[in-house]
Amino acid sequence: MLAWLKNYRRALLPGDISAGIVVAMMMIPQGMAYALVAGLPPVTGIYASILPPIVYAIFGTSMTQSVGPMAIVSLMTAAIVGQMAPAGSGLYSVLAAQLALVSGGVLLLCGLLRLGFLANFFSRPVMSGFTVGSALVIAGGQLKPLLGADLPHWHGPSAALGLGSVLLLVLARSHLAHLLRACGMKAPGAEMATRLAPMFVVVFGLLLVQALGLEAMGVQTTGKVPSGLPQLNLAMSSRHWQQLVQPGLLVGFVIFLISMSAAQSLALKRNEKLASNHELVGLGAANVASMLSGAFPVTGSMSRSAVNFAAGAQTPLASVITAALLAMALVAPTGWLALLPMPVLAATIIVAVLGMLELDTLRTAWRYDRGDALAWFASGAGVVVLGVEAGVLVGVALSMGTLIWRASRPHIAVLGRIPGSEHFRNIERYSADTRPELLALRIDANLFFGNSEAVQQRIEDELRGHPQARNLVLVMSAVSSIDTSALFALSELNQSLCRRGIGLHLAEVKGPVMDRLRQSDLLHALNGEVFLSIDIADKKLQ
Amino acid sequence: MLAWLKNYRRALLPGDISAGIVVAMMMIPQGMAYALVAGLPPVTGIYASILPPIVYAIFGTSMTQSVGPMAIVSLMTAAIVGQMAPAGSGLYSVLAAQLALVSGGVLLLCGLLRLGFLANFFSRPVMSGFTVGSALVIAGGQLKPLLGADLPHWHGPSAALGLGSVLLLVLARSHLAHLLRACGMKAPGAEMATRLAPMFVVVFGLLLVQALGLEAMGVQTTGKVPSGLPQLNLAMSSRHWQQLVQPGLLVGFVIFLISMSAAQSLALKRNEKLASNHELVGLGAANVASMLSGAFPVTGSMSRSAVNFAAGAQTPLASVITAALLAMALVAPTGWLALLPMPVLAATIIVAVLGMLELDTLRTAWRYDRGDALAWFASGAGVVVLGVEAGVLVGVALSMGTLIWRASRPHIAVLGRIPGSEHFRNIERYSADTRPELLALRIDANLFFGNSEAVQQRIEDELRGHPQARNLVLVMSAVSSIDTSALFALSELNQSLCRRGIGLHLAEVKGPVMDRLRQSDLLHALNGEVFLSIDIADKKLQ
Repeated sequence: MLAWLKNYRRALLPGDISAGIVVAMMMIPQGMAYALVAGLPPVTGIYASILPPIVYAIFGTSMTQSVGPMAIVSLMTAAIVGQMAPAGSGLYSVLAAQLALVSGGVLLLCGLLRLGFLANFFSRPVMSGFTVGSALVIAGGQLKPLLGADLPHWHGPSAALGLGSVLLLVLARSHLAHLLRACGMKAPGAEMATRLAPMFVVVFGLLLVQALGLEAMGVQTTGKVPSGLPQLNLAMSSRHWQQLVQPGLLVGFVIFLISMSAAQSLALKRNEKLASNHELVGLGAANVASMLSGAFPVTGSMSRSAVNFAAGAQTPLASVITAALLAMALVAPTGWLALLPMPVLAATIIVAVLGMLELDTLRTAWRYDRGDALAWFASGAGVVVLGVEAGVLVGVALSMGTLIWRASRPHIAVLGRIPGSEHFRNIERYSADTRPELLALRIDANLFFGNSEAVQQRIEDELRGHPQARNLVLVMSAVSSIDTSALFALSELNQSLCRRGIGLHLAEVKGPVMDRLRQSDLLHALNGEVFLSIDIADKKLQ
Repeated sequence: MLAWLKNYRRALLPGDISAGIVVAMMMIPQGMAYALVAGLPPVTGIYASILPPIVYAIFGTSMTQSVGPMAIVSLMTAAIVGQMAPAGSGLYSVLAAQLALVSGGVLLLCGLLRLGFLANFFSRPVMSGFTVGSALVIAGGQLKPLLGADLPHWHGPSAALGLGSVLLLVLARSHLAHLLRACGMKAPGAEMATRLAPMFVVVFGLLLVQALGLEAMGVQTTGKVPSGLPQLNLAMSSRHWQQLVQPGLLVGFVIFLISMSAAQSLALKRNEKLASNHELVGLGAANVASMLSGAFPVTGSMSRSAVNFAAGAQTPLASVITAALLAMALVAPTGWLALLPMPVLAATIIVAVLGMLELDTLRTAWRYDRGDALAWFASGAGVVVLGVEAGVLVGVALSMGTLIWRASRPHIAVLGRIPGSEHFRNIERYSADTRPELLALRIDANLFFGNSEAVQQRIEDELRGHPQARNLVLVMSAVSSIDTSALFALSELNQSLCRRGIGLHLAEVKGPVMDRLRQSDLLHALNGEVFLSIDIADKKLQ
């Protein structure tokens, strides 16, 4: 906690200050836009960007994570709260903050129970598919503000402004850095300008709306943004606690997943160490702070953290500076914030989530493992078809399903002796000699409940194929653990072989596995021996 | 399908006939009792024991499985349907049958989609805890009929009859076989008599009630049992389809789990082969048949199948004979079935589920793996506290949680050279030599999304502990698979080491893993080499 502050050196300050300023400039339109995605007044997006990152700076462990509103979590908030209260109502705001409290509580509890390993419940392809599906849903939801009306109708001036902004932003993303460098700007500055393009486009849009009087022509703007810091919010709906438990679990899980994947990829770049249990506490506390600010669930954002990182952030002080600047912006006159044109904000959201349409994972998975590629599609389709909330459960089910499905097809090799040597190899890959009375099987997987049945079946199949075998040797060189379920399966196999007069032997058992087996009855009951190597087993069992 | 019939030999007939008769005698009180557990008229329990086992005999693959009513599935039926309809109402019966249809449909669908591997979603300790928790809940629910009134009150004659029956049944279970053998009966006969004890106790109770006129004193009996075969039932409640989907999934899952664990343990005894996808179809069809019979969800039962097996069943013909005998019992006068005393039936249920209180798994797990023992307790507590329906989800979460938690702590060994040899071993277990410039790590787990983060972190930790290392060799002798998530983690590790000027090498990569890696970019981008053995790597990287 605050270790970074105790070791703070002055040399780190310039980087933190520049990152603090850049992220603050990015945060104003982004925070407001993500508040709109969550179905809330734009100013709550800025509220969510002040206290939560400060609290995260105290409890979190990532040096460059930027905590605040994030597209997918805002989408989930809208999906969940939208079922419980009418959009725009006071209850809606209360429930959004309450959802942050429940999610934060879940995260804190998981952190105290040291459940950080839960971040491993999503496979990478499933997470990628989930992200892409969410991006499509979010972009789809922004078409109406972008065009000023529902499809297929549109409102001319709004659509022109919105689509023009999309075009500008896409061009900025693809060409601005190159252009600026060609004009003599240095690479880091050019890249920073590109990152801030959304802010420039929003300001440009604002000026355009004012200059051309587009508001009078029906282009919507954000509307009055109250001045001043967020008030302490303690409003809660006592009727809704129970209804918020399950959504709070899901939102907490997603907050953790998204934040960890962002923090990990950044930590790797600087060889920093993350402590997942501390991260849970940091994110939990940040969400409680968001509730107290009257905002909505927040998390670490990949795209914003990458900007923070690229702009030179060295410690969480950068986030504290961002928060201070945003607080100052709220204390200053906020009249101009009321004039931000909605189609332009929608354009920034759409272009931002287009950046989440990452197909590299799919491409790699398609070449490397077709099953993972299918899981990617199923996960994305789950979000699009069933919604983001059910999509999380679909994702967990797919990750676990892939895992169990793979486990149910363990690799087991029949071994034979390489002629004239002490070495035994897979007879399918090497020309190796076997004896009909001895069947040597190498089990290439840790034994656990997910595969013990399949291993048992495979052994029976091999025994059927080797009817003369009097001895079965299981070569355990690749087995690093055997759980209780697999221990029972081995005992049953032993009893069954015993009845049939076939010896069951183990060879090349690893130290930790052997230590564990000594605490069971298996070795005692074993209808055979434990050999140091398959070579010795083969010689002794002549 | 029906392969057993095509190869039927006359020699198998005596076993099948004797098993058919024994199970039929067992089925009458048991079927009626489990119908009561499900909250349904007793006769439906017999209906559930006629058509479903015949249909299973056609589609299933187990030779000795006995499909019909089963305590846990009946308990789930009561828990689910009890929330939707008042007990004893017509709607209740309709929904119970409809639940069988939905569960059957789920099972059929899973079978056609070849999802038989789903049986591996429960670890053995979790399944055992779930079973024990369910047994306690079922026994608790039978206290009222056993004592004739709610605790702490009781109805004297009922309680005397009920507790007396419990005592008799417990004594029969523990001593009858021994006693009969002492009287000169042969072992198999004595065991069979013990298995049939519940039926003798029920008949004895019936006679006692009649002889002493206990019915007039308030002892409840089953009441009129309609004569004749079940009518074709097509009644459904169109309003409840949606509400039945999720429960149907859970019930289908539990049906499959229970039936598979029974069938597997029997198949192992005779070295028979089960096809889990065919089992899904067999159980699904049996449940559709149960719906058409106007009954409720059915499954294979461990205890009944063990009787079937012990009584000599060779093929599913035994179950067909049982079904035929039960059908004959329904066509014959059924007046006497109305007189079965409820306290005695409750006693048979209680003693039957006491047999499910199997603590051997817990005992083994406690010694062998404390985490598995905790999962046992949590699973049992989940059923008792949250109910059997939520208990299934708790069980899945616990199994998966244990799996991911274990995966998050992979075993990784630092290797050193055994002086003067070509062998490298874990330096914590052997006195082996290392060089500061070379760090050799053996990864003792398949790499997948559940552990790739932890492996990455562990490697970084080791590198921090070996600051002079210029080359890192990952010894992959125990790695049999690398999924897409882990492939990305390895690529990121490679990039990170590349930036730091540390070489990343692989050694002893298995054939199938290498084949797979060749389809990725990793080998191409690798900041190092792939060596046949760590010995070669060590010599080349001097």
